[in-house]
Amino acid sequence: MNQTTAVILARRPDRTFVADDLSLGTIDLPELAAGQALVRNQYMSLDPSTRGRMDPGEKQYTTNFTIGGPLDGSAVGVVVESSSPKLPVGATVRHRLGWREYAVVDDAAATLCDISVAPATAWLSSLGQTGFTAYAGLLPVGRLQPGQTVLVSGAGGAVGSMAGQFARLLGAGRVIGSAGGAEKCAWLRDDCGFDVVINYRDGDFAAELPGAAPDGIDLFFDNVGGWQFAAALQNMAINGRVSMCGAISNFGTQEQPSTACLIEAVLRRITIQGFIVRDYEDLRPEFEQRVIGWLASGELVDRATIVEGIANAGAGLAGLLSGANVGKALVRLSE
Amino acid sequence: MNQTTAVILARRPDRTFVADDLSLGTIDLPELAAGQALVRNQYMSLDPSTRGRMDPGEKQYTTNFTIGGPLDGSAVGVVVESSSPKLPVGATVRHRLGWREYAVVDDAAATLCDISVAPATAWLSSLGQTGFTAYAGLLPVGRLQPGQTVLVSGAGGAVGSMAGQFARLLGAGRVIGSAGGAEKCAWLRDDCGFDVVINYRDGDFAAELPGAAPDGIDLFFDNVGGWQFAAALQNMAINGRVSMCGAISNFGTQEQPSTACLIEAVLRRITIQGFIVRDYEDLRPEFEQRVIGWLASGELVDRATIVEGIANAGAGLAGLLSGANVGKALVRLSE
Repeated sequence: MNQTTAVILARRPDRTFVADDLSLGTIDLPELAAGQALVRNQYMSLDPSTRGRMDPGEKQYTTNFTIGGPLDGSAVGVVVESSSPKLPVGATVRHRLGWREYAVVDDAAATLCDISVAPATAWLSSLGQTGFTAYAGLLPVGRLQPGQTVLVSGAGGAVGSMAGQFARLLGAGRVIGSAGGAEKCAWLRDDCGFDVVINYRDGDFAAELPGAAPDGIDLFFDNVGGWQFAAALQNMAINGRVSMCGAISNFGTQEQPSTACLIEAVLRRITIQGFIVRDYEDLRPEFEQRVIGWLASGELVDRATIVEGIANAGAGLAGLLSGANVGKALVRLSE
Repeated sequence: MNQTTAVILARRPDRTFVADDLSLGTIDLPELAAGQALVRNQYMSLDPSTRGRMDPGEKQYTTNFTIGGPLDGSAVGVVVESSSPKLPVGATVRHRLGWREYAVVDDAAATLCDISVAPATAWLSSLGQTGFTAYAGLLPVGRLQPGQTVLVSGAGGAVGSMAGQFARLLGAGRVIGSAGGAEKCAWLRDDCGFDVVINYRDGDFAAELPGAAPDGIDLFFDNVGGWQFAAALQNMAINGRVSMCGAISNFGTQEQPSTACLIEAVLRRITIQGFIVRDYEDLRPEFEQRVIGWLASGELVDRATIVEGIANAGAGLAGLLSGANVGKALVRLSE
């Protein structure tokens, strides 16, 4: 094995990403050096941040993709050859070289996944960066206290559905979500235990929010930005906090509200904090312990929308960016 | 004395405030009750927040003015009659009933000003809410550390000129200001000790800022909002902080940037915190002690633009909102 099929950046997207911005190609795999293993990828994660990395601008905390070069991202797979005692053949491992069918990974950059406590897919979802992002945004960033009112935008997505459920499990008094479409809203209410879900596509989010949060929002976990962000600021409690996880509404061509809405941050003494999950790595053990417990007790719903095969990865990402997924979005690369 | 001349809200401004939105009128003064004093106002403070209180919208932390009713705001004056042992005749006191020539004040809502350590005007400026706002925005909110790079927008104004000078006196490594017009810029550089001042009216603020802050901005003390806010976000250091004091650019009819700029808060892990100075009252003793020391040593410049007479108060406020003042804006009501 010295080559593998991989997803290549064919061209930089013209604002709205389309699957044709990517192509399939063949890339070389290096010979295994000491401390490396060859992994057959089983699942890879589709993430909104991948879209940003296709642009040329400075990203501060990560690298941009090169035109003609392969994408990368979180994946789990099975070790099929190994030169590392830490990564035995047959083990399931998580690493950062997805968007290809096989990968040569360094043992320092891979972690073993215990599939006796949770399936491989969960190690990319509730137990992966997805869940950990929700956890960091609620606790160290958002300083959630029991009894507080939490709003999660983009709640039907991977991070949002975890953020709302974690908030409930951590004792929030009221969990409000926004999502696009009746199916997601019903799932969040009926299966994930959200108290109120607003369908931002059908109704008037800004008009419905005051009724959903009559005592004000203590913590707003924002994945969306834009008009939902502006409306949320108008409904924050005094001294409320905004955990800014992302702003998926920026990726498209939607008109955006003006920064004039930020005067509410002064009037209501709001703290808005952007965060990157990698800054909170010291919390991972307590995070994993809690999530494994919630999965075992059945209190946490970990649902994935799974696209089949590497050839459909680009279409899957386009779907993610347009809100087509419910829960975590994954690509199955092999059994 | 049972009546006084006062400034009345004649009508709510149509976006841009004009002096004719106010009128002069006569209001009744109550008989002195126990614990009250009659004060002849000497100086009153002109503040951007007065503009917001003329609108009908909810302000969260203060009250709006009523059409036909008097304005109010910070003032200092001399006690001319007293029914309170705490407010002796002849004392200089600070209170919240400006925008009128005489006021009946409660002793619980008035503080004695020691004019042997600083003139009456300074008790509305460097030693008043103006200076205290700068102090709160730098320390408890902005968590300024020695050696850090600080940007102050609206630096030629009352709070901004204090924020930049306090930052320098508290050990900032580099103090950058933005101001409108060559005179303010020269004053900030030559007299107030700013390291770099950008004239946002003459040049391209967004283009000049990277050169002014080559290592990134650790703390942005924002009085302006809008395009300067958006440009500053693009030049923040990782883990930088924004103390949002106000957004005077919102008051006019200027076009505003979109919230899409806030993605920088995620990428750079920025914390944006709006604040109201009244939440930090426990710091007032240490604040006053420090500022009295800086004034005594001559290290702090406290400059005021003074408008003469209550009839000119509205014109003075219009001037403040258009950036005509250098330093603190005051109205002299009597000797």
